[in-house]
Amino acid sequence: MNKKIEKKLIEVKEHITKIEELNKLSALVYWDMKISMPKKSLEQRSNTLGYLSGEVFKLSTGLEVKGFIEYFMPIIKELSLIDKAMIRKLKKDYDETKKIPEQRYKEFTIATSLSEAAWEEARKKDDFKIFEPHLEKMVEFQREFADYYGYKENKYDALLDKYEEGMTIRKLDKIFEELKEGILNILEYIKKSDKKINKDFLEDKFKIKRQKKLSLFLLNKIKFDMEAGRLDETTHPFTLDIGNKDVRITTHYNKKDLLSNVFSVIHEGGHGLYEQHISDELIGTGLEHGASMGIHESQSRLYENIIGRSKEFLKVILPFIKEEFPSLKNVKLDKFYEAVNYVKPSLIRTEADELTYSLHVIIRYEIEKQLINGDIEVKDLPRIWREKYIEYLGVEPKTDSEGVLQDMHWSAGNFGYFPSYALGNIYGGQFLYKILEENKDAINNLVDGDLSYINNWLSDNIHKHGAIYTPEELVKKVTGEEISTKYFLRYLEEKYKSIYI
Amino acid sequence: MNKKIEKKLIEVKEHITKIEELNKLSALVYWDMKISMPKKSLEQRSNTLGYLSGEVFKLSTGLEVKGFIEYFMPIIKELSLIDKAMIRKLKKDYDETKKIPEQRYKEFTIATSLSEAAWEEARKKDDFKIFEPHLEKMVEFQREFADYYGYKENKYDALLDKYEEGMTIRKLDKIFEELKEGILNILEYIKKSDKKINKDFLEDKFKIKRQKKLSLFLLNKIKFDMEAGRLDETTHPFTLDIGNKDVRITTHYNKKDLLSNVFSVIHEGGHGLYEQHISDELIGTGLEHGASMGIHESQSRLYENIIGRSKEFLKVILPFIKEEFPSLKNVKLDKFYEAVNYVKPSLIRTEADELTYSLHVIIRYEIEKQLINGDIEVKDLPRIWREKYIEYLGVEPKTDSEGVLQDMHWSAGNFGYFPSYALGNIYGGQFLYKILEENKDAINNLVDGDLSYINNWLSDNIHKHGAIYTPEELVKKVTGEEISTKYFLRYLEEKYKSIYI
Repeated sequence: MNKKIEKKLIEVKEHITKIEELNKLSALVYWDMKISMPKKSLEQRSNTLGYLSGEVFKLSTGLEVKGFIEYFMPIIKELSLIDKAMIRKLKKDYDETKKIPEQRYKEFTIATSLSEAAWEEARKKDDFKIFEPHLEKMVEFQREFADYYGYKENKYDALLDKYEEGMTIRKLDKIFEELKEGILNILEYIKKSDKKINKDFLEDKFKIKRQKKLSLFLLNKIKFDMEAGRLDETTHPFTLDIGNKDVRITTHYNKKDLLSNVFSVIHEGGHGLYEQHISDELIGTGLEHGASMGIHESQSRLYENIIGRSKEFLKVILPFIKEEFPSLKNVKLDKFYEAVNYVKPSLIRTEADELTYSLHVIIRYEIEKQLINGDIEVKDLPRIWREKYIEYLGVEPKTDSEGVLQDMHWSAGNFGYFPSYALGNIYGGQFLYKILEENKDAINNLVDGDLSYINNWLSDNIHKHGAIYTPEELVKKVTGEEISTKYFLRYLEEKYKSIYI
Repeated sequence: MNKKIEKKLIEVKEHITKIEELNKLSALVYWDMKISMPKKSLEQRSNTLGYLSGEVFKLSTGLEVKGFIEYFMPIIKELSLIDKAMIRKLKKDYDETKKIPEQRYKEFTIATSLSEAAWEEARKKDDFKIFEPHLEKMVEFQREFADYYGYKENKYDALLDKYEEGMTIRKLDKIFEELKEGILNILEYIKKSDKKINKDFLEDKFKIKRQKKLSLFLLNKIKFDMEAGRLDETTHPFTLDIGNKDVRITTHYNKKDLLSNVFSVIHEGGHGLYEQHISDELIGTGLEHGASMGIHESQSRLYENIIGRSKEFLKVILPFIKEEFPSLKNVKLDKFYEAVNYVKPSLIRTEADELTYSLHVIIRYEIEKQLINGDIEVKDLPRIWREKYIEYLGVEPKTDSEGVLQDMHWSAGNFGYFPSYALGNIYGGQFLYKILEENKDAINNLVDGDLSYINNWLSDNIHKHGAIYTPEELVKKVTGEEISTKYFLRYLEEKYKSIYI
């Protein structure tokens, strides 16, 4: 490579480093708002966040970036793997941001904050009507933005692509149809089973102080590095990184529900491990993030469900749980395992069991797709929601709050995001069987509580690469195949047919 | 005022707002480093701080600011009080930053971090020699910087002016000479007194958990707003503001020493009240800070000593203390008051009693002044330090750690900063007598635990004005006089002669 290109590469990395510093600052400011900030500071802090996002906007869409793209795109084949990915990512962000007229984006930002507030109020008052006009605006904005972004076949593809590069309705319809069918089959099987699972012992009083101790134990077991991260408490758990050496996760505690925190911690811990394992090499390239929302979710759900709810992992943690919560001291591992994996179709996505969870996501996907394409109208959502829940899950929401108002995503204009959750499940299944193919005892060995093998495998094959590969490329590279539902469905079938015998 | 000036004023405020946003971010990042950051993130975080200070440098010294100064200086008399002060402050910061060649400033920054590390090591190993060459460099840098800043009479004046605008050796020599003499007289009186004060009961075991409860009680008593601030724990207590609605203070706990935390919390609380009371009007003017280091310190020391160690305030807090620490339940208010105000010349500034504290500061001032003017050499510091401690305080440091190495200020190149502490005492005395002149019961009324009068007075007369006035202007405006030691000395004399009867 000639000197001139090398010099230009240094320049572009310096520029990206500035953007990344601002992103880190935004992350810290956001974390602080949720964890430490005194409440009277909210307004001033919103200005700070506004300042930061304005600066990121300027740096991501300025003439400098345009120059870099024009310089590098014609010679992109000459670049190294990482540099190539860096320029591709810079261009994707530039295009996405630049295509929306600044004025419209500002209007969207203002509309969003009104919409979020309206959603909160609607939820509290259990009245979709309050939210309806705002949701209509959000849908309009997203339809308009989809046109700006551009798409080949379907308007909704433009939104999917934001969260899962390369994903389209054409692919997703097929994937989700298979997934839905597979899950409904297993659910049918379970309904016919005579198996009675007792989970009453999980509803007791569990001291928060001891639950906190358990959280640290769990993070230690999955090898989340507390010297490069931390754990705090929020109503809605999240993971956020201020670089790969400062990964912050949160959880929530429910005195009456031991599992709520347990699987929340493991879930966010899975996201956190991804961020902690991202290679230092990627710092300052803009690639020091997960490959996509779906791939990120595959890691959290793999840790939460495939590992976290496995009998092998539960065996490792049960003794500690018994010690901290003596009311559980006579619970047998088999019974604990069954209780943890109890299946019951329900109304709320975030409280769903592992099996039916994806159905909640598919319902949202189907609705989003039709909304964006103008096939259904916002005002009909409560009815459509109810019908789909009855059809797929056999449960009927009695109110808007336990129905269409339960998730905040749409209030923030996040359409195309929901599918990531189910894609995460599917990817996770594929990764699981690839791990087992290479080492059939990878899960069995958990009896020694040693997650090293799985951790290292995920780190080497997925985490460390950050966003070098698109999700499509990554799945192909890691598993040798395109995305496929068969592994996740096989995993579900084997697991739940052995529980509900 | 014409439209053009008004438009320009909006522009300059927008520019200053950006600088202030970056300053707030630096403050948050610093707080987070001390309180929340996982340790492996130190290096990445240093880069973030470096990025922020670079951006502040650019915004404070750029052509835009130069343009504002050139535009406004010729018409400054046409501006309002606040706008005038805003431009004056912008110019002062511009001049200070711009005068140092960028390359030299970078070298200084690098030298500082080495120097700080060397100081830490020297202190640990109790060996001044390790620190000596670094301190020499720090002195050289400050001498050089003083020349860049410029001064009329004395090189050291340039450094004093950074922390206390308008202060000079000519003024300070006289002030400190009076102060020293006054304090030594009272000390002489105390030495001759037969009064025996028992403070053994203050050295017991005090549960940290209960001390934390006490901290919140104290902050509540002085009316520090916990909805616009917070309290955390660090080895070295500090106050930091992320705007007037987010003022963060810290304290330290010593199991064996109840007072250490008590007066640390009240001291930082005093700094915090200043920041919380700064008027919203000043947001975005660059004046939303204290008037000077000395004025800031006057508030912390007024709360810590004049109020905090008064019998009236102790009467308010003693019942709570007795409840939390039953070993003190038989302590009488008079005995508690005496113990809290026990005078004993000692070696360590931060642990000094109220009376002798200023002597520690004066010693440092005398040394700094001579160092900067080349009248003494760094290598002689341990000896000079020892001689001055023997002369003024009658105590002899046996080691460098309990002598010349005890403070970190010089290792960071902060020369001219120490005098602020004693100036704070002096200002505080002046403010006290002004308050008493207006309301002779202002202190007596504390028997009801009501600090409202004093709080409001300080807020209205000092806090809310932020940095509109120079310290000189402010003291004149508030008290009608120039800085004068007589009030603080009168306060000390009345207080200590009544204790040591």
